Amino acid sequence: MLKRTYEDQHCPIAASLERVGERWSLLIIRDVFFGLHRFDELQNDLGIARNVLRDRLTLLVDEGILVKRRYQERPERFEYKLTEKGTDLWPVLHALMSWGDKHAPLPDGPPTVVAHRGCGGVLDERRICDRCGELVLDVHDVQAQPGPGASRHHPLLVAAATR
Amino acid sequence: MLKRTYEDQHCPIAASLERVGERWSLLIIRDVFFGLHRFDELQNDLGIARNVLRDRLTLLVDEGILVKRRYQERPERFEYKLTEKGTDLWPVLHALMSWGDKHAPLPDGPPTVVAHRGCGGVLDERRICDRCGELVLDVHDVQAQPGPGASRHHPLLVAAATR
Repeated sequence: MLKRTYEDQHCPIAASLERVGERWSLLIIRDVFFGLHRFDELQNDLGIARNVLRDRLTLLVDEGILVKRRYQERPERFEYKLTEKGTDLWPVLHALMSWGDKHAPLPDGPPTVVAHRGCGGVLDERRICDRCGELVLDVHDVQAQPGPGASRHHPLLVAAATR
Repeated sequence: MLKRTYEDQHCPIAASLERVGERWSLLIIRDVFFGLHRFDELQNDLGIARNVLRDRLTLLVDEGILVKRRYQERPERFEYKLTEKGTDLWPVLHALMSWGDKHAPLPDGPPTVVAHRGCGGVLDERRICDRCGELVLDVHDVQAQPGPGASRHHPLLVAAATR
């Protein structure tokens, strides 16, 4: 566990990585941001072993990043939503996405763009809207959308199709 | 290796994590930002096994995030500097630091603050300077400084003492 690995580090970056730096954790959080909330939806998208997904979800719930809610009784089924602590991670995901788009670009362009909700512009890597020029910092003012490089398996499209 | 783990993910976040998401990689990059450039300095600060550090440094050099330069011939000694691709990671580190400062605060306050170079203000989690109100986006305009919660082992202080 990272928790033990970084124990001697007196550092908020290490503290954050202890909570979200486990393999797959940030991609789970990404998927929940994109609208995949149910265990099977997440498992389908990530293609990881069920026990690994279960472990990561438990850790993220224990950390107060996700909340778990039962949506079906027989058989029991659960869904996961981001808490405010979870949505506060959007600058981390946006920074990783921007760096990846710049330094490891995909052949068809970015699979995801972050739109300025209500304005229609797109945020650049500084989180400035390319239409109105505003600096957009509140997660409620942004909306992830499929970009030019989105495949038909993009979690945003999968989530939209199941609603 | 993450590279293989995330292979099926068509996603810039996954692509970034493939490059910097290995355990310790982001803390190595943090230390180089803070002025620790030499293998032994990094090893002292991180307290990790030498072979692990060597593996991570090799990966980061191969990815073009760090450059390796020999600074001594007998015995051979190397130091590591960030490339532009490497310094482009500062929003990732800043976002992780801000989230950690907010959601996993250390008892004595933030060990590191990010100052607006030449102005003396401090950047908030939006990267806005608390003195002049400017949005600070260029890595050359910022300078990490020990904060109220810095211990005497803070890499910035260690780096300053060896210069």
